[in-house]
Amino acid sequence: MTTFIDGKAVALRVRAQVAAEVATLSRKPGLATILVGDDPASAVYVAGKRKAVREAGMRDLHRYLPATVSQGQVAAVLDELAADPGCDGILLQLPLPAHLDPGALIDRIPAGKDVDGLTTHSAGLLARGENGLRPCTPSGVIELLASEGVKMRGAHAVVVGRSSLVGHPMAEMLLHHDATVSVAHKHTTDLAALTRTADILVVAAGVPHLIGAEHVKPGAAVIDVGIHRTPHGLTGDVRTTELRGIAAQVTPVPGGVGPMTIAMLMANTLRAARR
Amino acid sequence: MTTFIDGKAVALRVRAQVAAEVATLSRKPGLATILVGDDPASAVYVAGKRKAVREAGMRDLHRYLPATVSQGQVAAVLDELAADPGCDGILLQLPLPAHLDPGALIDRIPAGKDVDGLTTHSAGLLARGENGLRPCTPSGVIELLASEGVKMRGAHAVVVGRSSLVGHPMAEMLLHHDATVSVAHKHTTDLAALTRTADILVVAAGVPHLIGAEHVKPGAAVIDVGIHRTPHGLTGDVRTTELRGIAAQVTPVPGGVGPMTIAMLMANTLRAARR
Repeated sequence: MTTFIDGKAVALRVRAQVAAEVATLSRKPGLATILVGDDPASAVYVAGKRKAVREAGMRDLHRYLPATVSQGQVAAVLDELAADPGCDGILLQLPLPAHLDPGALIDRIPAGKDVDGLTTHSAGLLARGENGLRPCTPSGVIELLASEGVKMRGAHAVVVGRSSLVGHPMAEMLLHHDATVSVAHKHTTDLAALTRTADILVVAAGVPHLIGAEHVKPGAAVIDVGIHRTPHGLTGDVRTTELRGIAAQVTPVPGGVGPMTIAMLMANTLRAARR
Repeated sequence: MTTFIDGKAVALRVRAQVAAEVATLSRKPGLATILVGDDPASAVYVAGKRKAVREAGMRDLHRYLPATVSQGQVAAVLDELAADPGCDGILLQLPLPAHLDPGALIDRIPAGKDVDGLTTHSAGLLARGENGLRPCTPSGVIELLASEGVKMRGAHAVVVGRSSLVGHPMAEMLLHHDATVSVAHKHTTDLAALTRTADILVVAAGVPHLIGAEHVKPGAAVIDVGIHRTPHGLTGDVRTTELRGIAAQVTPVPGGVGPMTIAMLMANTLRAARR
């Protein structure tokens, strides 16, 4: 039997827990989402985050900046929010217009308000296994694995992909949960040989349908972080239907990892407010 | 044929290159080693580093602080060196006396002077694959592999151990060299099964004689970072003599990785001075 993990249900549970805790706070946490320019996908993502903020009972401190804004102007907005005691979390929506330097801007966010977990300092805290805010998508994967009771300690976890946003922090977090962790990427010579040894397989390669039955050990938990728009609808990095009867758990696309990202953003904002 | 990698020779070559470059500089790089208290092993290590500084033609800005020094007093010395334009690198020798908080002190070292590569910021830069100063021992391992012409791209590298000082940054550095990287540790369930798939095996477990013939694939490069004092002399984490005729390359203990640490500290100090 293969379980299709219901990410929507887990995400709703996390968001309900956050809302319940927020309801007990006299000062409501505030999240500042910053949208620069008019990228339609970014506008949709930010709208979803703002809706979740309001539904959690938190304060929506959204800022919109036009695409023509200068590096210095974005920096000034970040510095103002960094200094604002009513702002608990700052999220600079990526990608930015090409004339802006995202790394330098993100690193202006204080570690305590870095609810996306993307600053150099947060990456360092994660690398060291020290307390800090973690990137939302890999945090969501950990939450899904925990919700299914998948044992991480001593398991062999293989992460396919090594991006700063997902693959790399994912590997770090699995390591801190005491998994034996392997990271595969485009230079990996025999991907299937490696992934077939995985008890936990997290695929964040950004390659549609990369992983199928030939890559998966019977009984493995397979988490698909990929999301691709095709003429036939949304699809992931995993040929999910092939894994029926092989994997113990698998996440669908859509409805698997996707909903967890916003849920963990809410959890991070609450956590930032509590510190 | 198994090659025993001559770490002393590679280290001397690195140090000679550094000295030759230093000789061309009008302003000589300065390295501040800070020794707190009277730990005999630390005193020996610091003496070796200071000797290497002088031999490289750099300025020795050593500071000694008594074991009774306060956190604030060490912080003040670090801040003074951080502000000193004649000081290019700062190394706080560990371990510190138990009443001091090493993490908070190390994080006062500016990233540009962090020649030990141990600050949170440096760990973040490494995690992201961005330019920065890297920890000396794993840098030395990369240098040894390169000196032997061991191909890292696409190779399966297994790192045994996940310390902040060695194992963890080692895995990061191998990943940035495009190896497929696995990290094993005390919770790994079948260590030999994993290590037998390694083209490059770096052992930094801190367990004497942990790794032997049964752990090694024929033709692998085996790097032993362990160093233990026994009644029979120094020994590593690897039963090196068992690997004769199996491994393509192996590092002896002593004389393998050990000499590289100081050599890479010199290279880091030069690099810090050039920025």
